[in-house]
Amino acid sequence: MLKHQVVREQLDRMLDGLQVGDPFPAEREIADMFDVARETVRQAVRELLLAGRVERRGRTTVVAAPKLLQPLGMGSYTEAARAEGHSVDRFLVGWTRLDADAVLAATLQVPAGAAVIQLERVFTTDGVRVGLETSKLPADRYPGLPENFDYRTSLYAEIRSRGIVFARTVDTIETALPDARESALLTVDARTPMFLLNRVSYDQHGVPIEQRRSLYRGDRMTFTITMEDR
Amino acid sequence: MLKHQVVREQLDRMLDGLQVGDPFPAEREIADMFDVARETVRQAVRELLLAGRVERRGRTTVVAAPKLLQPLGMGSYTEAARAEGHSVDRFLVGWTRLDADAVLAATLQVPAGAAVIQLERVFTTDGVRVGLETSKLPADRYPGLPENFDYRTSLYAEIRSRGIVFARTVDTIETALPDARESALLTVDARTPMFLLNRVSYDQHGVPIEQRRSLYRGDRMTFTITMEDR
Repeated sequence: MLKHQVVREQLDRMLDGLQVGDPFPAEREIADMFDVARETVRQAVRELLLAGRVERRGRTTVVAAPKLLQPLGMGSYTEAARAEGHSVDRFLVGWTRLDADAVLAATLQVPAGAAVIQLERVFTTDGVRVGLETSKLPADRYPGLPENFDYRTSLYAEIRSRGIVFARTVDTIETALPDARESALLTVDARTPMFLLNRVSYDQHGVPIEQRRSLYRGDRMTFTITMEDR
Repeated sequence: MLKHQVVREQLDRMLDGLQVGDPFPAEREIADMFDVARETVRQAVRELLLAGRVERRGRTTVVAAPKLLQPLGMGSYTEAARAEGHSVDRFLVGWTRLDADAVLAATLQVPAGAAVIQLERVFTTDGVRVGLETSKLPADRYPGLPENFDYRTSLYAEIRSRGIVFARTVDTIETALPDARESALLTVDARTPMFLLNRVSYDQHGVPIEQRRSLYRGDRMTFTITMEDR
């Protein structure tokens, strides 16, 4: 085992005894404590940061809150996080009108070149930017959406209010590293492992509702899923 | 956008036109092609490696095979991968006998200190090491397991052959970076984002069967899940 990993294990154990928000010792103190080089401490602390066990608050490091436990369900993430007592907010990155290329057209079952509305939002829980969500919807089926939809609210709720039922979702889940734009929008270190979810939702008639690409901070989010044999 | 990201985008587009196993141009060629520094190319290629788009074969770099599409289901991953036409193998890291600590005892619903069998295996598909799986089972309930179970086969099949039914699974899915031991066992770069799955399986009576920790290479694996409204 490498030196910084030994230090990390010790720090992990120390963290088990601390409370969320407690100050974390300074690099110099840790180096003295374990009699190792500052660079060794730096690497151990970087791993704790990327794992979401500690976080920076200005120039100090504190014990991080536990990750957000997010059920990998069909429903709205806004509603799920609120049900767990978290405050949820979204801010707008932008609305865009696109012409569907061949791949997107096939996914949304619209003619190639059809108008598509793209909505890009940052998802925050308890004031922390945890996700970047990009929704693509056929413009024809959602008239007035960019003008009337309050981007701070649940898009699922808006779609349901139009009489559309979410009957089936198909997800792929990958890991990814954020690119420069994404790490800036989510204020996250470019080395942070992220979840990349691609979802297509279908209504009760099998018609695609939405194609969504979501990038979530792996250091702030844990997905859960319970499956039962039917 | 940073220079290496521009290069990466161009390379991504170029990759779309290449076949699996095709040689990828050398750093120097790419540097000449885009008139950028070698270090810029190196960073772009590193991102392609971590994303699983290209892979090293000795001293050359080739176009990587698509990621393994793995349904996030209750069943055996061995069986699912085989159904998709992949060859699957496992090799043994080790069998260990543990005494359950308080947390593990609560998870497996056994008394604290009860004997637990731990099986650690590397999961390979098409000859590539894609996952490290650590199963913990109450020793009492699986007599003779270390002596009689062929670790190359499906543990789920072995358990089912003992008349036990997998009725419910509870998963958490996190991202992680591999530690030194894990990156050596999976022959993976320590900066590769990984999936970390923790699963507890329950039988038809609600009794825990197994606690499993699985670390899968994010550059080689995509999980899929389809959900329906019931």
